[in-house]
Amino acid sequence: MGMMMRHCIGIDVGGTTIKFGLFQEDGILSEKWEIPTKTEGRKEKLYADLAASVREVLQKRGIRSAELAGVGVGIPGPVMPNGSISALVNLGVYDLKINEELSGYLGGVKVRAVNDANAAALGEMWQGGGKSYDSVVMITLGTGVGGGVIERGRLIAGNFGMGGELGHMIMNPNEPDACNCGGHGCLEQYTSATGIVRVARRFLAQEDTPSSLRAVENLTAKDVLDAAKAGDDLAVRSVDCSMRYLGWAMAHISHMTDPQCFVIGGGVSKAGQYLLDVIRRHYESFLFIQKPQAKICLATLGNDAGIFGAARLILGE
Amino acid sequence: MGMMMRHCIGIDVGGTTIKFGLFQEDGILSEKWEIPTKTEGRKEKLYADLAASVREVLQKRGIRSAELAGVGVGIPGPVMPNGSISALVNLGVYDLKINEELSGYLGGVKVRAVNDANAAALGEMWQGGGKSYDSVVMITLGTGVGGGVIERGRLIAGNFGMGGELGHMIMNPNEPDACNCGGHGCLEQYTSATGIVRVARRFLAQEDTPSSLRAVENLTAKDVLDAAKAGDDLAVRSVDCSMRYLGWAMAHISHMTDPQCFVIGGGVSKAGQYLLDVIRRHYESFLFIQKPQAKICLATLGNDAGIFGAARLILGE
Repeated sequence: MGMMMRHCIGIDVGGTTIKFGLFQEDGILSEKWEIPTKTEGRKEKLYADLAASVREVLQKRGIRSAELAGVGVGIPGPVMPNGSISALVNLGVYDLKINEELSGYLGGVKVRAVNDANAAALGEMWQGGGKSYDSVVMITLGTGVGGGVIERGRLIAGNFGMGGELGHMIMNPNEPDACNCGGHGCLEQYTSATGIVRVARRFLAQEDTPSSLRAVENLTAKDVLDAAKAGDDLAVRSVDCSMRYLGWAMAHISHMTDPQCFVIGGGVSKAGQYLLDVIRRHYESFLFIQKPQAKICLATLGNDAGIFGAARLILGE
Repeated sequence: MGMMMRHCIGIDVGGTTIKFGLFQEDGILSEKWEIPTKTEGRKEKLYADLAASVREVLQKRGIRSAELAGVGVGIPGPVMPNGSISALVNLGVYDLKINEELSGYLGGVKVRAVNDANAAALGEMWQGGGKSYDSVVMITLGTGVGGGVIERGRLIAGNFGMGGELGHMIMNPNEPDACNCGGHGCLEQYTSATGIVRVARRFLAQEDTPSSLRAVENLTAKDVLDAAKAGDDLAVRSVDCSMRYLGWAMAHISHMTDPQCFVIGGGVSKAGQYLLDVIRRHYESFLFIQKPQAKICLATLGNDAGIFGAARLILGE
């Protein structure tokens, strides 16, 4: 390699946009951009769009293929250790072997893909909320709940596409409503943005206690969390009910990989320290054999976590 | 090193006996022996006994210190990553820094210690039931319930002494009885040998259905499992109740590190394939996002798993 600075590209494939980041080998983000996601139901279209966008930036910057260490990709679905993906339901594409196939579109450049929540976890460990730790579990509270388990700086992506699929841990098998996955009582049904609203609606329907939430049309997770912060009793109890399941799941994680730090991200995490305090209280209530010592931090990279983590997939090897 | 064959010693410290194994570098067990555990409440007594027994076998076999790659130790309690141990309650010794202190008694030989259930997991992955896999979670169903998480051939020992402490995952916070740890509803309270008996006793007390178990004095886990295998309805439902919690906990594990294989060990695992079938049925009932693919196997090293794993701690580095 000599004195040549190498580069790497991190890609975060989402349902509506695809985010790209060009990184220097030392982890500095040189440039980021995005394109709309338009698969037209064909994986070839996805690959062609990804490859065209990568080639364009390399050309613009005068970076030769030999200077590109590789391309990391975060994918919204389960990815096997060899990069095979049976279905990306939201994108309408099936049977991908992304490591080989996308590499083919890029003249043989190394490609590595993992689940998008796993990529975000790797990004937050590398340059975000978990930066001072190498044993980190990230939990993303968005429309759904995703996760990623990092151990000694390396992602545990899992063997059957389920590594860090924390949102589908079944926390309450007695839950009458079904999750999108078909299960009943998944963590996601309580602690995602939609889950927080669902739980609050249930409290509102089952009680006739007064609450500021009764006046709100099109209730959002932010409404529920803001009301709880303002001391609305029903909202406080509703957030408590949601976050108890998260604290409990985190205690399970501590009994298993015992991380140094949990990083909480996703839109819901904008509720900040109030949310962390509620989570921490419940987390500690499920730990008895050791004094609880893991840190609970907020994510800091926001929507860029995925491109950072995807780049780290390449640079960390 | 040249052509010199190196050796290594694996030690499993138990409440009543201490087991030793002398291993060749290639993993062959050359000799095993044991001594009674007699700490007299002093860690110095424990170290002196361990060191004397190690020196004796080295002398007998004509093995020089330079030919000893190190000493691995499995410890019945929580061990920090640096080998520090605040308390071994059952042995009455406190504030150990075993890596340095035992090394001092052995003329500077490398010492590495982990929790005993973690060591057993490493042993079963290396030479036992999980031999064909490198991503294995072992669950030991004995008087208590222990565990160990192995990822890409390496133990995840955890950061605060809780790695693989699967027995204290709280599965049922509504449990009225307390666990030894102070929690309520720990996995161990249902699926350990004592837990299986406790659950069966509860079924016997709460029902007046006939059962072969009603005639048994001093009920053991083996009695309950044998009756279930023989088709005793109450015993079948009791084992089902116990193992549902284990299957559920294993599903949590699959949503986190997604291992290739679970290895079930400890005295309870002598119930064999019947037990595995019950566990598998419940495990699968808690998995929805992916078809369940992890194997569930029986441990094969029995009481030797600990010395194998302790040796692997040294040889695997």
